[in-house]
Amino acid sequence: MNYKEILLDKISQNMEVIGIIGLGYVGLPLAVGFAQAGLKVIGFDKSTDKVNKINQGDNYIKDIRDAVLREVVDSIKLTTTTDFTRIKECDALLICVPTPLDKFRKPEMSYIESACKTIGQHMKAGTFISLESTTYPTTTEELMLPIIEKTSGLKSEVDFWLAYSPERVDPGNVTFHTKNTPKVLGAISKEGLEIGEKIYSKAIDKLHLVSSPKVAEMVKILENTYRLVNISLINELALLSGKMGIDIWEVIEAAKTKPFGFQAFYPGPGIGGHCIPLDPFYLEHIAKKYDFDLSMIHAAGHINMRMPNYMTNKITSALNSHKKSVNGSNILFLGVAYKPNIDDARESPALQIIDLILKKNGQVTYHDPYIPTLTTAGKTYHSVHLTSEVLQEADCIVITTNHADFDIDFIVKESNLIVDLRNATQRRGNKVHKL
Amino acid sequence: MNYKEILLDKISQNMEVIGIIGLGYVGLPLAVGFAQAGLKVIGFDKSTDKVNKINQGDNYIKDIRDAVLREVVDSIKLTTTTDFTRIKECDALLICVPTPLDKFRKPEMSYIESACKTIGQHMKAGTFISLESTTYPTTTEELMLPIIEKTSGLKSEVDFWLAYSPERVDPGNVTFHTKNTPKVLGAISKEGLEIGEKIYSKAIDKLHLVSSPKVAEMVKILENTYRLVNISLINELALLSGKMGIDIWEVIEAAKTKPFGFQAFYPGPGIGGHCIPLDPFYLEHIAKKYDFDLSMIHAAGHINMRMPNYMTNKITSALNSHKKSVNGSNILFLGVAYKPNIDDARESPALQIIDLILKKNGQVTYHDPYIPTLTTAGKTYHSVHLTSEVLQEADCIVITTNHADFDIDFIVKESNLIVDLRNATQRRGNKVHKL
Repeated sequence: MNYKEILLDKISQNMEVIGIIGLGYVGLPLAVGFAQAGLKVIGFDKSTDKVNKINQGDNYIKDIRDAVLREVVDSIKLTTTTDFTRIKECDALLICVPTPLDKFRKPEMSYIESACKTIGQHMKAGTFISLESTTYPTTTEELMLPIIEKTSGLKSEVDFWLAYSPERVDPGNVTFHTKNTPKVLGAISKEGLEIGEKIYSKAIDKLHLVSSPKVAEMVKILENTYRLVNISLINELALLSGKMGIDIWEVIEAAKTKPFGFQAFYPGPGIGGHCIPLDPFYLEHIAKKYDFDLSMIHAAGHINMRMPNYMTNKITSALNSHKKSVNGSNILFLGVAYKPNIDDARESPALQIIDLILKKNGQVTYHDPYIPTLTTAGKTYHSVHLTSEVLQEADCIVITTNHADFDIDFIVKESNLIVDLRNATQRRGNKVHKL
Repeated sequence: MNYKEILLDKISQNMEVIGIIGLGYVGLPLAVGFAQAGLKVIGFDKSTDKVNKINQGDNYIKDIRDAVLREVVDSIKLTTTTDFTRIKECDALLICVPTPLDKFRKPEMSYIESACKTIGQHMKAGTFISLESTTYPTTTEELMLPIIEKTSGLKSEVDFWLAYSPERVDPGNVTFHTKNTPKVLGAISKEGLEIGEKIYSKAIDKLHLVSSPKVAEMVKILENTYRLVNISLINELALLSGKMGIDIWEVIEAAKTKPFGFQAFYPGPGIGGHCIPLDPFYLEHIAKKYDFDLSMIHAAGHINMRMPNYMTNKITSALNSHKKSVNGSNILFLGVAYKPNIDDARESPALQIIDLILKKNGQVTYHDPYIPTLTTAGKTYHSVHLTSEVLQEADCIVITTNHADFDIDFIVKESNLIVDLRNATQRRGNKVHKL
């Protein structure tokens, strides 16, 4: 039997071992999904802390139910390790490492490169490899393939198969999770696509196959660029509407009644998280290689970057209406997660606004039931308990994230001044300044 | 009884007379809708031709069924006239005049201004007036109101009521037409809103009331700006994808499998029609008054304006692959309407591409079952019959509009070279060059 036949045979007997590289919000749910499908799964991560937690059945990803994680760990379907030499035990390797931007907004490919080197050093022949991390088109074929071939001495599409299948994880989404979100898969060869389809189908309800990894890479970028561009558009229209005395939130509610050709996006203090604000710049990066200027992404990025500044001006202006300056005022931020009802403050615009307020010598406190501590500008803050006294003592309350469990009526009643950047209060007046 | 009571009384007895100013693709369906609701409707238009046609039951709007028009005309529910003095017979006036851009892409408000002057000269006190034409926010209150008050000598919200309710007509849409498309309505006063709701409810299934005309004005602009921006984004990504050897159509199909947070838009040779390419520039115009630069609309407009040029380059490049120049080649355009299955070539990007090809001394012919004759660059063309000979004689076929009744297999079989700007052929190869 050749490598392909051996692997297909294992797959048909549910005997293939799945290796997941990176156990974050993408990798861990995927690992659990394959384990639930009855496969043996090895999760790899450099963090001893994460690995120990999982091996003790201790769940750190909100979208996974604790009981489900404990079950797959207890049944030894899922084991996790920091020992990357165990890559050789795996028949399929799914790479779920971060792809951030560096300080100059250039793609930071070192996680992918490092994963490929490690894989090349330890993999056995006959392995299926798939990247899940968002990246620029051509990454799989032009960056990963040469690294893996060089470090392994094996030949792509002969001794191993390489594919790209972008994650579509939407943290906090209660309807769509890893299993029931259709998944796009593009492989270099027909054989790779066939193998990948058989493997992924065990953990994912619906696959959509495309003709190449670079098509799949572009799919993910299109999805997130669409969001960046539309949020930036509505932010720009919100700023103009503010100047014109038009309530943009009312406008959006009305536009939503159009039953075709419209999808609502909402303004806010900026775009956070690990996808929307970053992914389009992956494309901008590779476009330069093709002498191409992406003016829509450029304009959208510009607006998004300026939003925390505009919001800081809004706070300044609200305080000014009470004859107060930022300097010396108590400013209480409600919600610092990058979106509602999740425990993730990465790239959160709230942090940028807090930093700007701190620079102006504002006294910052915050409340977020999901984020107990917060470190920014070298200082660590603890979420305060939201009492009448806390609200009354604040010169200005800034609602940066609209968590569902905020008691808005109580907050409005006890506050002196509110800058509501999320239309959480759904009102406007002397007390409430709304975006 | 005061004016309001008199009008409400008429409305309750279905005795109010509706005047529709402008009998185009917005006004005529609206007039028919009110007539079908059993009201007496007077349609006003400066075009004797249009007025005569309707009075003879001769329908010129594809989205209205001929039998329905004939019925409301025969039952004398709908009469049309070029005599604007009959405005005095009306209890409600709905303005459906064009709002184009001038040569410098500035809003051409003369149609609205002229309608307001005429209304002011002839209206009776106690009339409800609503503008349906797309325009920039503040038009109703700051442009229309003073003109009507001045020419009529009447007082807004005392002697008459002024409102804004944007049309949402989507020509060719077989699911949503005037009656079953929810309609947004904003009035200056509470009384105007109450009256407007009662009147419009007779012809429209669902109304969405907003707090002011300027909110309603912004709603319409948001809806169409959303479309301009997204079509421009996908056009820009299509151009980059072309350079990278990625099939953007395949990318979009795959992205569409994401069950949340994505709406598909498709690339094309540019944006046509009377709304999407124009409306956002209404907002850009008024934004300047507020010292505001709309960078997203600016970038989107720029891409859209350049698309016909890029498409001309694509034709040049396709011909070049056959060792031919545009100069002297027979270039046959399939579809010149601005979108599929409609008979409207206004602002169609096909016209701009044809003009560019003519400047390069290409020999242009076209085929469009919906557009029998076409005048551009001072010359009139007639749609040719699509025979094997016609297709074989063309050096290049350019598919500019994807009408449903094109026989694509026949076209591909008989052609030498196709530039497919709409993915009508759903293939790519030596013969077919796809956007």
